[in-house]
Amino acid sequence: MAPPGGNETIAAIATPFGRGALGVIRLSGSEAAVLAARLLRLPSKDSFEPRKSLLGRAYGETEIDQVVAVFYPGPGSATGEDLVEITCHGSTYILELLMQNLLAFGARAAAPGEFTQRAFLNGKMDLAQAEAVAALIGARTEQAHRSALNQLEGECSRRVRAARQDIIELLVRIEANLDHPEEDIPSLTQAEACSALGRSSQSLARWLGSWDQGRIMREGARVCIVGRPNAGKSSLLNALLGFDRAIVCASPGTTRDTVEEPARLGRLPSVLIDTAGLRERCADEAEREGMSRTERALDGSDIALLVIDGSRPIEPADRAVHERVLAHAGRRPVISVLNKADLACRVAPANGDLRISARSGEGIDRLIEEISRRLSPSGHCAEDETMAISSLRHFECLRDAHAELVQAEEAVRLFPLQWEDKAASHLRRASRCLGEIIGEGAPDEVLRTIFSRFCVGK
Amino acid sequence: MAPPGGNETIAAIATPFGRGALGVIRLSGSEAAVLAARLLRLPSKDSFEPRKSLLGRAYGETEIDQVVAVFYPGPGSATGEDLVEITCHGSTYILELLMQNLLAFGARAAAPGEFTQRAFLNGKMDLAQAEAVAALIGARTEQAHRSALNQLEGECSRRVRAARQDIIELLVRIEANLDHPEEDIPSLTQAEACSALGRSSQSLARWLGSWDQGRIMREGARVCIVGRPNAGKSSLLNALLGFDRAIVCASPGTTRDTVEEPARLGRLPSVLIDTAGLRERCADEAEREGMSRTERALDGSDIALLVIDGSRPIEPADRAVHERVLAHAGRRPVISVLNKADLACRVAPANGDLRISARSGEGIDRLIEEISRRLSPSGHCAEDETMAISSLRHFECLRDAHAELVQAEEAVRLFPLQWEDKAASHLRRASRCLGEIIGEGAPDEVLRTIFSRFCVGK
Repeated sequence: MAPPGGNETIAAIATPFGRGALGVIRLSGSEAAVLAARLLRLPSKDSFEPRKSLLGRAYGETEIDQVVAVFYPGPGSATGEDLVEITCHGSTYILELLMQNLLAFGARAAAPGEFTQRAFLNGKMDLAQAEAVAALIGARTEQAHRSALNQLEGECSRRVRAARQDIIELLVRIEANLDHPEEDIPSLTQAEACSALGRSSQSLARWLGSWDQGRIMREGARVCIVGRPNAGKSSLLNALLGFDRAIVCASPGTTRDTVEEPARLGRLPSVLIDTAGLRERCADEAEREGMSRTERALDGSDIALLVIDGSRPIEPADRAVHERVLAHAGRRPVISVLNKADLACRVAPANGDLRISARSGEGIDRLIEEISRRLSPSGHCAEDETMAISSLRHFECLRDAHAELVQAEEAVRLFPLQWEDKAASHLRRASRCLGEIIGEGAPDEVLRTIFSRFCVGK
Repeated sequence: MAPPGGNETIAAIATPFGRGALGVIRLSGSEAAVLAARLLRLPSKDSFEPRKSLLGRAYGETEIDQVVAVFYPGPGSATGEDLVEITCHGSTYILELLMQNLLAFGARAAAPGEFTQRAFLNGKMDLAQAEAVAALIGARTEQAHRSALNQLEGECSRRVRAARQDIIELLVRIEANLDHPEEDIPSLTQAEACSALGRSSQSLARWLGSWDQGRIMREGARVCIVGRPNAGKSSLLNALLGFDRAIVCASPGTTRDTVEEPARLGRLPSVLIDTAGLRERCADEAEREGMSRTERALDGSDIALLVIDGSRPIEPADRAVHERVLAHAGRRPVISVLNKADLACRVAPANGDLRISARSGEGIDRLIEEISRRLSPSGHCAEDETMAISSLRHFECLRDAHAELVQAEEAVRLFPLQWEDKAASHLRRASRCLGEIIGEGAPDEVLRTIFSRFCVGK
């Protein structure tokens, strides 16, 4: 992909818009130091000592500001080409005046993400790392931040390269079968190819399985609180939040619409969803609508907390509702929560039931631990984090690569003759899909879309 | 004034709040380099080469971000003490995590303006210069920006010092009269003292006169558009703005309330005020209220544009209204504008009248020039700007100093005996007032108030 505008020197305000103590302008390209020297009225670009702060004054027609400029010569700079950072007072007026002059001297206003794009084009980072820069800036939770940082430092890229290497080695052996059947290279049997392809596709399948984990990191786990009316669902929401969000009322059926509230459960970013109580039969139209919303909330959740009033015996109507929840939850984890533990218990806890009191706070910490545990079934949350897929683009590339491997395996299994040809072409496509993640052979269209999502100045 | 918290090392996020490419954290104080080295897990603060960018990784419990740190050793730094600037990715999450760790290591979150306050306390700048930093960051117009920059570079301070020096020299000569009347130092006569005091007080009076000029720079000139109903006042507002802001209607009396709109007239920041048409007599209560608002707007304006419909002959009712405007305007400049120049002219232009057409745009540029000229009567706008008083605090100090000089002069004139004593005590007070502008002998209270208006990180 040719950089838009070729080798022009680009300039941008790199700090957020608004008033602050400091503002920073970045310049990148072959003329970066020349333009900066002109702005500071220095004799030449040689006035800059590489990577050393230079205190000076920036001028347009008249003086604009006292500034500090640092010159990072390419290719050792962040963008891989000459880069200058100019720090001035944090006034929008000053920043814009400096930009105007740099543009008048011949710089071009950078497009969003163009600095990172140049770093990518100059081989300073691969595409997954470049994407991590935007993810890092946008990270709002501990997990999203750590995942983006791992990706920036090449963790994701290393995994992609390893998976791709496996595929390419297999491809080489299959092609050896094709090209030199007469030579005495130990030939690959169909059974061997099948088993190698199975291993690769299973490994990608495991990785694809981490997509939900990645989504939870970015958007928070959706925790749906369900149960019969007056079981204490809204009280539990408030207890988990640590403050009163939902209207709690002794009369049953207080919550009609679903209530969503972002929360942090231990280290887990999450969205708590309080729902209308479920009944065996609905009294009126409004209640029916409330219940159908509850079921939709359950459909879109990652885990359900089934709240049961532990202070009164379980009746057939309760059982019917509980079964409906379990049926609706499908493969989602459901935690049964026996609430009102501050009152006398009238329900025998089943295995895995948690006794809590939303009112006194008893058992809430244990419930939070259990939610985290159930959402990372392997119990190796830290490992999963680095493995998790963090962008839809990566998910789609991996999914396509996986589909190609599955088809390759089928081809080997189904065709006794010429299986090599068919498998090889699937393997080539799988390799290409993985390459796209790190930007090898990624089409221009893809690159443009990715970098256009960045903020200007990065 | 002792810095609040003594010699603690302070830390703050110096870039505006929000998402951006880069964020900067500043650390100032004796431990700045030690804390930064700890954050970057460097062996010691000696890992920093002064003023040179160091690429590293910042850590809390785990890695937080890839950062660039620059160490500016005191006393050559901006604050006059050890200073470190850490540039990271522009994410609020990352910036806050870095801050949390620096605070945990022993830094204190800086109060607003505390970095500049330390620069002041360490003698890196005087108080007027320190105030200019805040003014510079807040500047929104070319004039405000240039005035703040001049003040930062010491223009205001030099003028204050010169005025103060004159006063001190006079004081020394008067005190010589008092202390050593017998010695043969050429003694100061009453007439000489009177004339020297007159020169000083006149010079301060001229400076005080620039207060309005300074206000115009900061807030814009208030340009009040007045005239009889249907003279075309709202059309003129729109013509000066370059877009349709006011509702223009052929029926007279359309504008009831005053309409204010910020605008740029050439290089002059201004606020245009459109008003209800003035009649000889009011038809009803609403109209009376509208007219009294017009008169209040005129009272608060810097210049009035009296709009006259040039397409119909002037009647006695017109004259009555025009005279009322001139009487009300007092010493403010009034420009008579003969509007509707696109129609046949039925009014003989008096000297200074401007013919325009708000509808066609004819004469608007000349009107804008005339407004600028009338608001800077000396015609030396550029010189006045550097002289203009930019803060109420400076105005009050100058006003008090001026009052003391006037009283000193009176004392010299009115008391044939012991005039020296009285004049000397007034001069000492005048000198103290001027000193307060640059922070010499400024009370703690004043300093606290000034720096608390800054943004954090500066």
